[in-house]
Amino acid sequence: MSSPAFYALVSGAGSGTGAAAALRFAQAYPVVLLARSESSYRPTVDAIRAAGGSALGITADASDPAAVDAAFEQIARELPGAKLAAAVYNANAGFAVKPFLELKPDDLATSLGTAVHGLFYFAQKALPQLLAAVPTAPHPPTLIVTGATASVRGSARFASFAAGKFSQRGLTQSLAREFGPRGVHVAYAIIDGGIDTPWGKGLVMNNGVEDGKIKPEAIADNYWHLHTQHRSAFTQELDLRPFVEKF
Amino acid sequence: MSSPAFYALVSGAGSGTGAAAALRFAQAYPVVLLARSESSYRPTVDAIRAAGGSALGITADASDPAAVDAAFEQIARELPGAKLAAAVYNANAGFAVKPFLELKPDDLATSLGTAVHGLFYFAQKALPQLLAAVPTAPHPPTLIVTGATASVRGSARFASFAAGKFSQRGLTQSLAREFGPRGVHVAYAIIDGGIDTPWGKGLVMNNGVEDGKIKPEAIADNYWHLHTQHRSAFTQELDLRPFVEKF
Amino acid sequence: MSSPAFYALVSGAGSGTGAAAALRFAQAYPVVLLARSESSYRPTVDAIRAAGGSALGITADASDPAAVDAAFEQIARELPGAKLAAAVYNANAGFAVKPFLELKPDDLATSLGTAVHGLFYFAQKALPQLLAAVPTAPHPPTLIVTGATASVRGSARFASFAAGKFSQRGLTQSLAREFGPRGVHVAYAIIDGGIDTPWGKGLVMNNGVEDGKIKPEAIADNYWHLHTQHRSAFTQELDLRPFVEKF
Amino acid sequence: MSSPAFYALVSGAGSGTGAAAALRFAQAYPVVLLARSESSYRPTVDAIRAAGGSALGITADASDPAAVDAAFEQIARELPGAKLAAAVYNANAGFAVKPFLELKPDDLATSLGTAVHGLFYFAQKALPQLLAAVPTAPHPPTLIVTGATASVRGSARFASFAAGKFSQRGLTQSLAREFGPRGVHVAYAIIDGGIDTPWGKGLVMNNGVEDGKIKPEAIADNYWHLHTQHRSAFTQELDLRPFVEKF
Repeated sequence: MSSPAFYALVSGAGSGTGAAAALRFAQAYPVVLLARSESSYRPTVDAIRAAGGSALGITADASDPAAVDAAFEQIARELPGAKLAAAVYNANAGFAVKPFLELKPDDLATSLGTAVHGLFYFAQKALPQLLAAVPTAPHPPTLIVTGATASVRGSARFASFAAGKFSQRGLTQSLAREFGPRGVHVAYAIIDGGIDTPWGKGLVMNNGVEDGKIKPEAIADNYWHLHTQHRSAFTQELDLRPFVEKF
Repeated sequence: MSSPAFYALVSGAGSGTGAAAALRFAQAYPVVLLARSESSYRPTVDAIRAAGGSALGITADASDPAAVDAAFEQIARELPGAKLAAAVYNANAGFAVKPFLELKPDDLATSLGTAVHGLFYFAQKALPQLLAAVPTAPHPPTLIVTGATASVRGSARFASFAAGKFSQRGLTQSLAREFGPRGVHVAYAIIDGGIDTPWGKGLVMNNGVEDGKIKPEAIADNYWHLHTQHRSAFTQELDLRPFVEKF
Repeated sequence: MSSPAFYALVSGAGSGTGAAAALRFAQAYPVVLLARSESSYRPTVDAIRAAGGSALGITADASDPAAVDAAFEQIARELPGAKLAAAVYNANAGFAVKPFLELKPDDLATSLGTAVHGLFYFAQKALPQLLAAVPTAPHPPTLIVTGATASVRGSARFASFAAGKFSQRGLTQSLAREFGPRGVHVAYAIIDGGIDTPWGKGLVMNNGVEDGKIKPEAIADNYWHLHTQHRSAFTQELDLRPFVEKF
Repeated sequence: MSSPAFYALVSGAGSGTGAAAALRFAQAYPVVLLARSESSYRPTVDAIRAAGGSALGITADASDPAAVDAAFEQIARELPGAKLAAAVYNANAGFAVKPFLELKPDDLATSLGTAVHGLFYFAQKALPQLLAAVPTAPHPPTLIVTGATASVRGSARFASFAAGKFSQRGLTQSLAREFGPRGVHVAYAIIDGGIDTPWGKGLVMNNGVEDGKIKPEAIADNYWHLHTQHRSAFTQELDLRPFVEKF
């Protein structure tokens, strides 16, 4: 794509939430999509382009610092001079729900690798760019991180997942406090419910009630809202759940 | 005003937040404004009408159940058949910041009267109307309550205010859990910072930094966003604070 | 009883928790028991005396300021010069679990009356006495308030109870922050489970598992522990629940 | 030491808190102390023995799974048949307080290594032993983890530390929910203040007020209290702070 003044970046663009966020931000900015495989981001890149938007897909494992470095270098080459208006960290590894004594150290490492180390690498690359965009961007430059119920509740048999998502929340909160006063809006979205994705159709939530699973497009609308909040009224943590969800 | 299909209702419409919310919702609905005195709501009613909207001001003390009853009766007479799309409870009494041993029982009663009893009366009138609007309203019918830092933190010398705002949060949370599954979105906004109102110009917050106080219009935009959230992704609690606010 | 140097005071001494707390503190101090009726405190007063301790029962409704005043006056007459080492506020009204739209204003008033107004009156009388005991008491003078699950969670159909217990928590937190630095330990106990009382035998909790209901004596041991904490390590909020409790 | 029926285990026994916990539990059980170096645990082992207690020091880095394995093997050899009554995880790496963009991936890895991975290894070894002690131990077998302010608050410039301590809290909470119903008490202590250690004398907290830093012995008393709580009244999270601490 030709080099724009601003762009948006979505890591973990292959999931329902990531794809929807990319589509939503593409209404305003060219969007760079990061995902572990081309097949993950390809349909969304195509959809953005079909709608007249601009998109660039890059294959990168969020938990691999070299891959993250390479992705940001590719962005710098392909979008020279473009400033980062909004970055979404949505990378998720699958998670093991099992008795603690059956967990392997690798289950923990995988959870932390994507939830925490990956966010750390991503934020260290993205925040300097977001800071650079502060004076001129149409909205306060924004870093949004996708959390989960396990970010605030360590349920039985969710030990490794909770370890990752609690950590991610703590890291994001610290970034919000450090970078907010410098004009960058750092927000954490606590997605408290199942997400309605094509590949999750078989998973029944809330007894199959209509809208008992969260629409990815609804999450994306909320991410866009966070991005456009006035700097006198930033939200740091946003909970999102279906109207029928127990909480 | 002639009777519309839907209307919005703001209690505590005399404050900066209440007036801004009324103006914002008036872009979509006729708005009824409740305030303790006509002089409180008059300028906003006039501004809504000047902008081509429809507004009705009613004088009522939110903590007086008879006055609340009378207000809802007047609404039923003046807007026959109109359904309630959104209700904002923004009534606030002033609050005493002083050593606990200097507080009088009346300080506590005043705090609870507006924060809790008033919300109770208001919600008992508004919720049946919001439920009635569920199947046909353009957005999920919504009850939004304005909270404060003191809703989640009992600071020293804020005993009576914290007693009221904690209570209000607990009541609102219970309503969210009861009425959410029935299609009514109940949300609590935690306003964590000073608000930038004309009469508060003298109060310096955050060293006087620009946008160091929350713009009422920014709060109103967030209330509108809450109202328009898809029912698969309701927010129950929304924190709002200036980018420079310590938290 | 003859006038001691220090005494302890339990309001709401008629319940299982209040009676157990009175018995526990009576191992160290003469104890004054407040309850709505003599029949409530009488068995505990007798048990304390039978065990060689000293006890005084006073009939007083915690939500009635005149009754609270009279109780403190009686204490001053009967225990001249005694300093207050520990005060426990355990007064509880019954609570209505029902749909919000079926609640009456009186349900709310009753909940707030005991949980909040009563604590306010009690604390205004007790705190000056606790402050006066700071330099000489064997342990940091302590005010302990009995909370509940509803202090931190507004469940559906618990609107009036949550309104009272949230409020009580906010008030207590404010007192902790104001009086802690002056040497008085203010703590809030969140009792998260059913309590094993003789009159609650019929109520099955946690499938009737042994110790699936909280032993009042166990709560009392924790209250005593709070009282004896070193002032370099005060606990402000203590959660207590049966080992099998879902939380 | 000769093989006892029960023993206690403290990981991170070299710090003020760890040493004090070992001394406290040694009043009831033989104690095994783990620390990174012999010089860390040696004085406490000597003190326990001098007081007539029984102690075994083992050198092990808590974040090294092979070292943790070896330590538990050594315990099994030296205390054959002894059951684990109480385990304290108090291992702490130093932490970097610096701007996020100056942090290195190693800062994060170090924080997570001790706070999370180390707890994971430790808990996987300790929990089966604690479960085995359930039916016969004098108190509910207990796992206590030492947290910090950063477990619940991600402050600016504390990104790596908060990432570790939030994670640790989430993991511990999950363990509490899984193992509580099986009779093992898992508790998290949130140490909210500076600790008064010999090597921290130079660090002034709370303006140097007496008892403005937490006494390690006071923490240890609280750990012992947690261990002796009746199973009908377990505390999951315990906050501890000096009476003068801002919170």
